Amino acid sequence: MGKKCIGVDVGGTTVKLGLFEVTGELLKKWEIPTNKEEQGKYIISDIAESVRQVLEEENIPLTEVEGAGMGVPGPVMPDGYVEVCVNLGWKDKYPARELSDALKGLPVRCGNDANVAALGEMWQGGGKGYTDIVMVTLGTGVGGGVIIDEKIITGKHGLGGEIGHIHVRDEETEHCNCGGVGCLEQVASATGIAREARRKMAACDTPSLMRKAGDQVTAKDVLDAAKEGDALALEVMEVVGHYLGVALATLALTVDPQMFVIGGGVSKAGQYLVEVINRHYAKYMPISENRGTIGLAKLGNDAGIYGAARLMLD
Amino acid sequence: MGKKCIGVDVGGTTVKLGLFEVTGELLKKWEIPTNKEEQGKYIISDIAESVRQVLEEENIPLTEVEGAGMGVPGPVMPDGYVEVCVNLGWKDKYPARELSDALKGLPVRCGNDANVAALGEMWQGGGKGYTDIVMVTLGTGVGGGVIIDEKIITGKHGLGGEIGHIHVRDEETEHCNCGGVGCLEQVASATGIAREARRKMAACDTPSLMRKAGDQVTAKDVLDAAKEGDALALEVMEVVGHYLGVALATLALTVDPQMFVIGGGVSKAGQYLVEVINRHYAKYMPISENRGTIGLAKLGNDAGIYGAARLMLD
Repeated sequence: MGKKCIGVDVGGTTVKLGLFEVTGELLKKWEIPTNKEEQGKYIISDIAESVRQVLEEENIPLTEVEGAGMGVPGPVMPDGYVEVCVNLGWKDKYPARELSDALKGLPVRCGNDANVAALGEMWQGGGKGYTDIVMVTLGTGVGGGVIIDEKIITGKHGLGGEIGHIHVRDEETEHCNCGGVGCLEQVASATGIAREARRKMAACDTPSLMRKAGDQVTAKDVLDAAKEGDALALEVMEVVGHYLGVALATLALTVDPQMFVIGGGVSKAGQYLVEVINRHYAKYMPISENRGTIGLAKLGNDAGIYGAARLMLD
Repeated sequence: MGKKCIGVDVGGTTVKLGLFEVTGELLKKWEIPTNKEEQGKYIISDIAESVRQVLEEENIPLTEVEGAGMGVPGPVMPDGYVEVCVNLGWKDKYPARELSDALKGLPVRCGNDANVAALGEMWQGGGKGYTDIVMVTLGTGVGGGVIIDEKIITGKHGLGGEIGHIHVRDEETEHCNCGGVGCLEQVASATGIAREARRKMAACDTPSLMRKAGDQVTAKDVLDAAKEGDALALEVMEVVGHYLGVALATLALTVDPQMFVIGGGVSKAGQYLVEVINRHYAKYMPISENRGTIGLAKLGNDAGIYGAARLMLD
């Protein structure tokens, strides 16, 4: 048994933790509730306590641990500074330093959760074997992470990989949560796909499998119907695929990764979704057929603890 | 006097060369014609001969030279391989290895010319003092370069920084040289700005300073008229600024540089152009006011030799 490392994925409801071999094998995973009382001031000490407890149970001295990484839901500056994490109540914090202090100086690094998940997928998931990937997470929102030479592009203001807020749609009129208009998230998130379906249904009388759900239609309904050849659902997915294809082509012409890894709830639609995106992506990359491929994420909700553990292993 | 380095910028008509202190001071610059005969097989030996000659004149032994860098007009793979350089006639080449062989094993590196110019602007130009910049060159076409941690993002297929071919305009119908439709280059290059002006003039009867030039209108005519408050020229620049603003915001949300450096012939319009772009850029970055700034390139046609020289200094 070699050295160990610890990955921590801090979410608004639970904190996921993982104990890993430095080679990438997950030895144990567990979770604790996120205590958001008093601006989340107990979160770090709860994590430290839980780590100590598990290490003791597993009979692993702290000296056997190479370090810990932590993904948090908000922008993290290159020096580890977190100005604000709305979901946790945090303000003006250096979470990595605090966790390190609480664990006798164990080396700790902190990153944005979406970026960290991308690193996890590169290490042991859909992008395993690659050094340069872009992950696009299609969930309630759209998240992303850019990994070049096995390192996260954090950006100089913590905005690296904020792919969900790329402006792709000039004719959009509604506002995104970020304050912008026409963001990728507004059309390619689960919420966005459902909204697009509602718009299409309202604009015509074409029969569709999606009409069963009516205004309660979900992204899954749309994708299931599209897979069955439902004409209206296919139209919705053409719109979604167009904007995702444009966004991926833009990323390919900027950082040119080996692979795009598609994750998040929407990616459960599997190969069908990859094919739709790929068709549009190819259209906006006539400049070269020698370009990054598109595939699916593999780690699901564990991407965060994998990537966090990998943060320390440079 | 410390160690020296050499920067070579290989263009389709001339090869520019520069002799530098490794600290960034340009000691001497000169150029030779690009001999494109027989698929450009003499280009490298011409460069080597010219370098040897200048070093002899300057009384600098080759051992005093840290290395040489070379920018070439085409995609360069991370290992230095050049599949094709249309403008030079090159095919299937490792230009850096060839130049190194011709200069007694002097260390030589090779990069794409637009990327190398970006590195030059970071080193001694508009981006001096920064480590992370994106350069956007608005010339006959639109080129670009992404520099993160003082290194070029070449990309795994040589497509890093190919910003001119980002798709930004869905309603475009004409094709770009790359085969795509709606590329940034089609609207933001000198050629693209002139085309946009012709379109606007053809679509209305509004009087405009631009009409003097008619179909011969140039980007400079448009920018000069816009600066004088010409309504139609201002409309053209709103379109151009919109797409440049969208593109820069996209780049900020991907690699989040400290600064965007605007270069190329169009950038001679100066601060007015920066203001137009900045206004639209801000609109698509509501997510944070703490973001990369926009400024002008400073090295003009010398950016290539500066950046090439900098290539060897890692």
